Amino acid sequence: MVKRKNRLSVEEYVEGILAGNRVVLSRAITLVESSLASDQHLAEEVVNRIMPHTGNSLRIGITGVPGVGKSTFIESFGKLVVDQGNKLAVLAIDPSSQKTKGSILGDKTRMEELSHNSNAFIRPTPAGAALGGVSAKTRESMLLCEAAGFNVIFIETVGVGQSEIMVKGMVDFFLLLMLSGAGDELQGIKKGIIEIADAIAITKADGDNIEASKKAKREYNNALHLFPLNDNGWRPQVKICSAVSKDGLADIWTMVQEYKTAMQANGFFEENRSNQRVSWFDEHVRYLLESRFFQQKEVKAGLIDMLPKIKNGEMSSISVARYLVDYFLKDIPND
Amino acid sequence: MVKRKNRLSVEEYVEGILAGNRVVLSRAITLVESSLASDQHLAEEVVNRIMPHTGNSLRIGITGVPGVGKSTFIESFGKLVVDQGNKLAVLAIDPSSQKTKGSILGDKTRMEELSHNSNAFIRPTPAGAALGGVSAKTRESMLLCEAAGFNVIFIETVGVGQSEIMVKGMVDFFLLLMLSGAGDELQGIKKGIIEIADAIAITKADGDNIEASKKAKREYNNALHLFPLNDNGWRPQVKICSAVSKDGLADIWTMVQEYKTAMQANGFFEENRSNQRVSWFDEHVRYLLESRFFQQKEVKAGLIDMLPKIKNGEMSSISVARYLVDYFLKDIPND
Repeated sequence: MVKRKNRLSVEEYVEGILAGNRVVLSRAITLVESSLASDQHLAEEVVNRIMPHTGNSLRIGITGVPGVGKSTFIESFGKLVVDQGNKLAVLAIDPSSQKTKGSILGDKTRMEELSHNSNAFIRPTPAGAALGGVSAKTRESMLLCEAAGFNVIFIETVGVGQSEIMVKGMVDFFLLLMLSGAGDELQGIKKGIIEIADAIAITKADGDNIEASKKAKREYNNALHLFPLNDNGWRPQVKICSAVSKDGLADIWTMVQEYKTAMQANGFFEENRSNQRVSWFDEHVRYLLESRFFQQKEVKAGLIDMLPKIKNGEMSSISVARYLVDYFLKDIPND
Repeated sequence: MVKRKNRLSVEEYVEGILAGNRVVLSRAITLVESSLASDQHLAEEVVNRIMPHTGNSLRIGITGVPGVGKSTFIESFGKLVVDQGNKLAVLAIDPSSQKTKGSILGDKTRMEELSHNSNAFIRPTPAGAALGGVSAKTRESMLLCEAAGFNVIFIETVGVGQSEIMVKGMVDFFLLLMLSGAGDELQGIKKGIIEIADAIAITKADGDNIEASKKAKREYNNALHLFPLNDNGWRPQVKICSAVSKDGLADIWTMVQEYKTAMQANGFFEENRSNQRVSWFDEHVRYLLESRFFQQKEVKAGLIDMLPKIKNGEMSSISVARYLVDYFLKDIPND
């Protein structure tokens, strides 16, 4: 294994990260994101070494459809968080980035003020990878940020794909941004997301829009009361805010901290983290097994013929699955 | 491969099923549910042979927490469906059956009238299998029922586990049963289920409960209007009904048929079926790969040591997943 010129040693990465060196952190994340086998081995050693220094953060997932004002919210809300003495890292999962060439965090200029703040670290989404791969990379990047001393992490995603469930599975608190004026403009959001949110923040509640925002808040509150309580006893809250006037932002931050305090007190915080770690393992096992399966030459060749027959109901989905998996694993003993 | 005494030949199964012979259908489902390798091969041949005769039904998922009156609803609603000249099969997915020894469809006596109707076929849930396995067996059982001439299928499940998403993925219409009086009694239902329902039916709307049911209907209607529309343009509806007075049941059946007509007209019906078939394949591949992985001796042994370390954050979930999958697939070429 030849060490590439622009790579550091494991020791250098670990020391740099633990010292809070942002350049080294950035390079370590690049390493984690790399698909080169030699990089992956190096990344694995680095991540394993920094594991004892991870976990000391509040992880917040933020989602919302395009147009909801996610960037400006994160810019304003992030600034408030940093101004209170926190170190903030912003990461992103964007399943649409392959198609749209990066609709979120495509360039740092999107959050100009925050990106120049020495206590904030903004990392654009890794492009061109499968969602399962992006997810693992984001998790490891999050761990690296924690080891580097960032005590608040935002994981940003767009509310239109598969990624919200994934983000929900890696954060302590899941915040859904919504626009006032229920109806057409909300149709972009994915089904099921409203119910998994720990809070809904109605954005752009300023000027002529304040009354509509208050009305939306009442409506969502009524709707949420029809839903089952969260397992942890938390009743999801609805807030209104404005990234322009800054109204409501402090209230949201207070709520998130109250959530943390309550969940640490009742044990849910650590229990959830522990369950998440096991789920990450399960999900990554699944992702790796599937990747290897669908990449295999014979499986690929078989599916060219069989997939259309599965689609039109000519062949049984279950039978074809059984046949191809048996073929794929034929050399592995079935204990 | 020795043919077991109580097994028929592929020919006998296929002919019996296509002739609508309920005894043969029942025995074919037993075959599909069997975990014996010889049975599985036989089942596979049978299912592949009947594939051209499948799909000609309306598949309806019905879910709701225990206490909502699911059995009595299915008994009354099923009778109405049958009385209109349909042939109805009722199947169940019950993830809790391992623990509770079958909380749904544990015995046929639960739906006494329906179970004695010659145009209804009620099949208790297969017990003691993993959910992914149960899911595949239920899908194949559904196909067998269709080939036997049943043109309406109910897939029943309890609204408290992982199974609703699975049922949603195998039906044309997903009906959620709810009780009036939002609040405590609804807490058993799983998050995200309300949003994926095509309709909510509020049960037990009789006697003193009618007013409360009408109020609940209004509230859910308001809440559902805050949600995004379904991809297919269908606005989920809220109905009230009583299995005792039979009020509202005909209305629900009319709605389901209107849904079918509309979705066939806009192409969603067939498109959804086609997508479901591909998902069944993907899910079963995943299930089989995972089963083989987690059953392997070395993987099992490794996890005894590593799982606690994953849980407490001592080892990286991603690294362990990578290590164990690489080990598991070490003899399979990585194309």
